[in-house]
Amino acid sequence: MAKEKIFFDNASTTRIDPEVLKEMDPYLKQHYGNPSSLHDYSDKPKKAIEKARKQASDLISANKEEIYFTSCGTESNNFALWGLARANKDRENHIISSAIEHVSILNPLKELKKECWKVSLLPVDEYGLVNPEDVKKEITKDTVLISIMHANNEVGTIQKIKEISDITRGKNILFHSDGIAAAGIIPVDIAKLGVDSYSFSAQQMYGPKGAAALYVKKGIKIKPLLLGGIQEKGRRAGTENVPAIAGFGKACEIAGKEMDRNIKYISKMQQSLIKGIKSEIKNIKLNGHPTERPPGNVHISFEFIEGESILLMLNIEGIAAASGSSCASHALKSSHVLLAMGLAPTMAQGSILFSLGKYNTQKEVDRTLEVLPPIIGRLRKMSPLYKE
Amino acid sequence: MAKEKIFFDNASTTRIDPEVLKEMDPYLKQHYGNPSSLHDYSDKPKKAIEKARKQASDLISANKEEIYFTSCGTESNNFALWGLARANKDRENHIISSAIEHVSILNPLKELKKECWKVSLLPVDEYGLVNPEDVKKEITKDTVLISIMHANNEVGTIQKIKEISDITRGKNILFHSDGIAAAGIIPVDIAKLGVDSYSFSAQQMYGPKGAAALYVKKGIKIKPLLLGGIQEKGRRAGTENVPAIAGFGKACEIAGKEMDRNIKYISKMQQSLIKGIKSEIKNIKLNGHPTERPPGNVHISFEFIEGESILLMLNIEGIAAASGSSCASHALKSSHVLLAMGLAPTMAQGSILFSLGKYNTQKEVDRTLEVLPPIIGRLRKMSPLYKE
Repeated sequence: MAKEKIFFDNASTTRIDPEVLKEMDPYLKQHYGNPSSLHDYSDKPKKAIEKARKQASDLISANKEEIYFTSCGTESNNFALWGLARANKDRENHIISSAIEHVSILNPLKELKKECWKVSLLPVDEYGLVNPEDVKKEITKDTVLISIMHANNEVGTIQKIKEISDITRGKNILFHSDGIAAAGIIPVDIAKLGVDSYSFSAQQMYGPKGAAALYVKKGIKIKPLLLGGIQEKGRRAGTENVPAIAGFGKACEIAGKEMDRNIKYISKMQQSLIKGIKSEIKNIKLNGHPTERPPGNVHISFEFIEGESILLMLNIEGIAAASGSSCASHALKSSHVLLAMGLAPTMAQGSILFSLGKYNTQKEVDRTLEVLPPIIGRLRKMSPLYKE
Repeated sequence: MAKEKIFFDNASTTRIDPEVLKEMDPYLKQHYGNPSSLHDYSDKPKKAIEKARKQASDLISANKEEIYFTSCGTESNNFALWGLARANKDRENHIISSAIEHVSILNPLKELKKECWKVSLLPVDEYGLVNPEDVKKEITKDTVLISIMHANNEVGTIQKIKEISDITRGKNILFHSDGIAAAGIIPVDIAKLGVDSYSFSAQQMYGPKGAAALYVKKGIKIKPLLLGGIQEKGRRAGTENVPAIAGFGKACEIAGKEMDRNIKYISKMQQSLIKGIKSEIKNIKLNGHPTERPPGNVHISFEFIEGESILLMLNIEGIAAASGSSCASHALKSSHVLLAMGLAPTMAQGSILFSLGKYNTQKEVDRTLEVLPPIIGRLRKMSPLYKE
């Protein structure tokens, strides 16, 4: 019998919800017009985008007018950093961020440094948490922008965004948060978070690839990243990807509605997987925060072995997991997130992220708990580092 | 009886070919994995992207390795300009372009000017043609980059790209061409054109919104626009929009196969529409080049009246056309392309682009020729400028 496939890589991308596909379908077929045209073919596409804007804003309790659609989470993060930095370059030139941000934040920061921006990357504690006091201490009169992610895409740690925004309030400092691993998965209330901009993406919440958003608080100056036409009130040029945006809107709506149920359902599987691994396998470490993590995140280091070997063996068993960010290089390099958390490189390189989602089942967790211990055992036997 | 709808706005966007939809379908449903993951779910998406890369490169006779996927034509053009300029800013600082480029070229150039680049915008003749001799004269020792579009998105004029690249050859000058209104519509042989980079887009060739490409000649240095992950060999970060890219590839394949047939079929309708308008309506002008234009482009100025009024009346009759670029502002402003061609503003503002495609029929042309003359007549009667 062929093994049933198990997809535990929901942090990387999710299966599209059938309801989302249904929402996209008419815009792939009959309603193909360009939303910016001046005839009937533009009507439905234009309305679809505005409906999606409302759905996306509702998910994070923002105003419809504060949502700008982009093509992916990376574009949203790039747009936020370049756009906020460049719109404020007449002011000062200091940016504060953290060592565990996604590469779509860290790499633009490297470029901004070449453009004479000063960038401070704050450390994190062993759980991957930025200490808001560190933010406070790092602020100088030159600080223009702070960028701290909401939930980490690898270890899941949920940052104290509100505490940080309390510090920046009244200081004329902009605060961006990368919410791609959070929005649609945990509740997000943008006013409570107190940020000025916030990225989120469809493909992490059972929506399609090709649509994401940047929330930009009303009144905040930001320069467009993509220049050209008048789409998105001149802040993001380029014909709107109508089917993907319509699907994203629906995904936001569904995520909001199902939030409580999904958290409950997925957390239970998460706890079961963590408990099972802890009881069956020695010399492991659950990475990230013990409580402040999204419901589907199970990030484990298995000492003495390589994450990629574990992945390959799991894959043979039909189980799809990840060894870190799928955006990172495939070279055998330890994750910058884990190293920033102080994990020893030998431990860091044996790390696996199981990211569970609403389409997973307890049966899949059970089967994983059956096949994982022998896989780890076999790999350790082959490892020169391991002594029984 | 409800009027049958006629879509003559193919320059703005096209209906997706059913074969393209079929190609996209599995990547919207079962093969939803992230192409960068390290498990079986990434296999088919990864292969789909590489297949599409081959199909896209074949359409323009390039090498597979020279194709980089982006989210839209605007992104491709932005990527080319910023990327080529920034990768070469240690050299000199002069860019040559033309007055009739798309806003996704002109607006980045405005920004580059603020970053101390010198930009020369060449004029065009009454047909919208850049004179290669003007390019030659404008080149200085500081010239790093030339950007001249292949076919104009409004009046259609096909530029003498080969003649221009002959001038730049051996001069250490980069040559970008915006081919969004050309590729898939007229034959493109990248080696014959002799350019270093070339933008083209799916939604102009019966492919989906959300996918476009930038050809970058092997060996050319270019900086990424979107920074983050390792996708597209590090030149375009962000999870690939797999369904849209797969659809784009298929659209390129179909466009190549159907090229001769489509050109023949669409040109015939084009000539019929032009002839009909010329014989039925006075005080009009066919804009663009008499012969050097894509098969579907019928761009007409109707003197004494406003293009938008014509559009609205056509729309009531179920006919969708355009008054200029759908990326431009809807403010009653004459097209920068027409003004550059020396058209009087009173003539320019009465301009309509009928862009015909492979799904149009002669019957649709005939019906347009029935309803258009009375519309123009009625509007002119209302116009204070018009005297019979």
